[in-house]
Amino acid sequence: MTILDELLSAEEFRGLSPAEFFYRNREIAGFSNPVRALYQTVRELVENSLDATELYRILPDIHVRISYVSREKNIVKVSVRDNGIGIPLKEVPNVFGKVFYGSKYKLRQSRGVFGLGIKMAVLYAQMTTGSPVLVRTASPKSKNVHEFQILIDITRNEPIVVSYKTMNNTRGWHGTHVELTLEGNWSSARSRIVEYIKRTALIAPYASISFEGPGIELSFPRATKKIPVPPSVGKPHPRGVDIELLKQLIAYVNSSNQAVTLEDFLVKVFDGVGRKTARSFLKWAGYGPAISIDELSIEQLDDLARKMKGYGKWRRPRPLSLSPLGEELLVKGVRKILKPEFVTAITRKPSSYGGYPFVVEVAIAWGGDIPSVDRPLLLRFANKIPLLYDEGVDVSRKVIDGIDWSVYKIKFPAPLAIITHLCSTKIPFKGVGKEAIADVPEVERELEIALRETARRLKRHISRIERQYEVKLRYITINKYIGEIARALSVITGKESKVFEKKLSEIVEQKVLKGGGRGNESL
Amino acid sequence: MTILDELLSAEEFRGLSPAEFFYRNREIAGFSNPVRALYQTVRELVENSLDATELYRILPDIHVRISYVSREKNIVKVSVRDNGIGIPLKEVPNVFGKVFYGSKYKLRQSRGVFGLGIKMAVLYAQMTTGSPVLVRTASPKSKNVHEFQILIDITRNEPIVVSYKTMNNTRGWHGTHVELTLEGNWSSARSRIVEYIKRTALIAPYASISFEGPGIELSFPRATKKIPVPPSVGKPHPRGVDIELLKQLIAYVNSSNQAVTLEDFLVKVFDGVGRKTARSFLKWAGYGPAISIDELSIEQLDDLARKMKGYGKWRRPRPLSLSPLGEELLVKGVRKILKPEFVTAITRKPSSYGGYPFVVEVAIAWGGDIPSVDRPLLLRFANKIPLLYDEGVDVSRKVIDGIDWSVYKIKFPAPLAIITHLCSTKIPFKGVGKEAIADVPEVERELEIALRETARRLKRHISRIERQYEVKLRYITINKYIGEIARALSVITGKESKVFEKKLSEIVEQKVLKGGGRGNESL
Repeated sequence: MTILDELLSAEEFRGLSPAEFFYRNREIAGFSNPVRALYQTVRELVENSLDATELYRILPDIHVRISYVSREKNIVKVSVRDNGIGIPLKEVPNVFGKVFYGSKYKLRQSRGVFGLGIKMAVLYAQMTTGSPVLVRTASPKSKNVHEFQILIDITRNEPIVVSYKTMNNTRGWHGTHVELTLEGNWSSARSRIVEYIKRTALIAPYASISFEGPGIELSFPRATKKIPVPPSVGKPHPRGVDIELLKQLIAYVNSSNQAVTLEDFLVKVFDGVGRKTARSFLKWAGYGPAISIDELSIEQLDDLARKMKGYGKWRRPRPLSLSPLGEELLVKGVRKILKPEFVTAITRKPSSYGGYPFVVEVAIAWGGDIPSVDRPLLLRFANKIPLLYDEGVDVSRKVIDGIDWSVYKIKFPAPLAIITHLCSTKIPFKGVGKEAIADVPEVERELEIALRETARRLKRHISRIERQYEVKLRYITINKYIGEIARALSVITGKESKVFEKKLSEIVEQKVLKGGGRGNESL
Repeated sequence: MTILDELLSAEEFRGLSPAEFFYRNREIAGFSNPVRALYQTVRELVENSLDATELYRILPDIHVRISYVSREKNIVKVSVRDNGIGIPLKEVPNVFGKVFYGSKYKLRQSRGVFGLGIKMAVLYAQMTTGSPVLVRTASPKSKNVHEFQILIDITRNEPIVVSYKTMNNTRGWHGTHVELTLEGNWSSARSRIVEYIKRTALIAPYASISFEGPGIELSFPRATKKIPVPPSVGKPHPRGVDIELLKQLIAYVNSSNQAVTLEDFLVKVFDGVGRKTARSFLKWAGYGPAISIDELSIEQLDDLARKMKGYGKWRRPRPLSLSPLGEELLVKGVRKILKPEFVTAITRKPSSYGGYPFVVEVAIAWGGDIPSVDRPLLLRFANKIPLLYDEGVDVSRKVIDGIDWSVYKIKFPAPLAIITHLCSTKIPFKGVGKEAIADVPEVERELEIALRETARRLKRHISRIERQYEVKLRYITINKYIGEIARALSVITGKESKVFEKKLSEIVEQKVLKGGGRGNESL
């Protein structure tokens, strides 16, 4: 037997469970070290809590607590409690103990997109301290509070319920309370976590958030009871299909009806497609409206998908499944946190990529408490989630760096901050860690349009300020001579110089300051 | 109940198959658009081919071909053929049609780490053109060549064999030939793909690689028949365990023996742990060597894992499972592609992170054909894979940017290129797209040490060049006056000035140039 034989015989093929895959590759979900893992754990829990409240029109009350279990071993306990709708009893084990299991696969905007984050946090706690996740949950009006301790069977990707008990819900509580004990570096993660909580408060001014960590306590009371309209579940947009989606949708429709026509299929399944639109499209694409969807070959499906993508006359996807913050709330949030001299915001009309609708919101803030920086300060948000890592590879950074800011009268260093917010039923993240948005051309385009529009407004503001500044300068210059002129007039007329001084000051103020740039001609 | 009702029905929990997860989240594996997807497809196929050859001491012969199926629809066919060991008949469907299935879960260095890439390419082809992957494969000495066409059942994560046939292997061929038809933007991906092929040729000088695309043909003949020693399958290093791994290893050992002692466990399972090392460690950690591993509680496992991580006297992990290029081959590769004036390389001793051994290799190249740049040109490699995207968030960039290069006599712009190569049984990638390496502290440290050592060597070279330059300047200056002196001597002596000129030139050359910096004192 040669070495080659041995090497070949050693070759062994097998499958990994999703839990084992992510246990082995935890970096890709952002759990690369005790600093990042702690930050990521807080994020996953807070975002689940926000989704469990505001999606159901409940004003969020969220309590976050980090405490040391052992300071020298870097072991911390993270506890997050909300007043949300809770998790159905029978779903609890899978929601916390089975990778790829969740409720977040619908076509609507939510913070958690992957159904993965919380399981990664459970996995990480389990592998660093061996301890299970503790979950307490109750639905509204539930008579009982359920308490679980859950581990993950990594090899089988199945939950292990370590303990379960039920208690009387005497106080009529509802919500979810999760506790995880993990290796986490609080002193290094502290500033990121605080920044994260702060920015979350900016983007969700209707939430009450309290945060308690070793040596720190923060409280962000709710600033408004106005909560954005929760998104409804949407249908796919025809511009963003692929063959695979088409096949799945056809199989789905066929399972409940017989002999569905192409026209019926388009109208029933897709967003914003009425009879008229369907027929116009089919005529353009060269298909009869009465063809049964069963009869389409792979080649025809390919052709159809391509033509659906290419057709220019679909309606824009409806924003029902999205929940942007809106210009008013965005401006409020920015004012509250950044305290700028000037701020303006734009919420763009919905657009779509790959079948998913999205809305871009951009705010631009200038001066005030914003420090002067060498390039625009960037605060990124996606579905109301602050993004703090990997800015360098984010599409927003790319678009911002591609703009010649001198066109907008901005010379760096300048006190310029840009806030970008992408809402979508599916954010095109670059990694499972959900920190950087990929440069999808459609998103890039919307971002640039919004950025340029806000930049134009800022330019007008800067021009106005510059004019005011010039005027003020002129006012000051003229004021210097008022005393002298008054004295001269006093000598000539014999009247007291103070009278002239007062009168002259009044005139200058009126003509130069109030009259603005044009008033000075008469002086 | 209507279809719409069903689509929009209320909260619903369910599991996704891994195939569906990655179909929905293809960006995280680098398949975000037709440019990136084409590049990624080429990569996955080429890397599988390299692994199928050099891991088995076969000198790689790889043929890559991209051709248009439809130029206006942006549909291309990618075909990659190798002379590797082929894929066992019964494994073919799963290897191409089941996410998380593969042979790459062993503890040894290989290019493909996730067992995911090729399935993503198959998924992407399927969703953009509806066409299956074509696979032709034969093992060495196989009498038959097997040909499959495979699709993926996304909902069930199972392969669908669309066609299968077998042919006589009359020519005694072995290897694998894969063809994929997908939407891909060749004109935009072209430069990246060419760069990728070029860099692959740099890091694998023992491979013969040919590339053919629309309007381009490249050929990189093998530069040497020397192939690095293939890695063997390794054991985990004790410094990098976690509780979960410990539990898995104990379960594994228990399944074949009874009552294994802690000492036996350590010796059998871990890399570089003999009886003596095991006993020293257990004494230090406060455990009796004869304790049965069954008896350990979760708390003890936690404590044990922590102490195994913290113990300072383990042997360094053995590099048997790694296959670095080596300083000689690295320098050769760099010379061939970058054509610098100066190049030096370092292969560091093996180290480990999280239980995985790794080796860092760094080369620094200066001058020659390297253009002057504002910051070091960086060429990154991981397990012999060129990394072309996401440089901004890579640990190499971070370490390089953290170095004050003026210490090493380098003032930018400068013709400086840095080549980094990380070999590991598991590269800590930041994303499934395998483009950026996470900043694991152990890797960061090794990179910095290697970088600073190569930089010191470069500094010595630059100092030498500066001295030579000074000398040359002096030589030129002195040479200017030789004619005059010779004429003066000719007038005085009556001899021909040419004689003096020749003699003087000889003296100057000998003293100034050959004698270097010190010789000039005698002039």
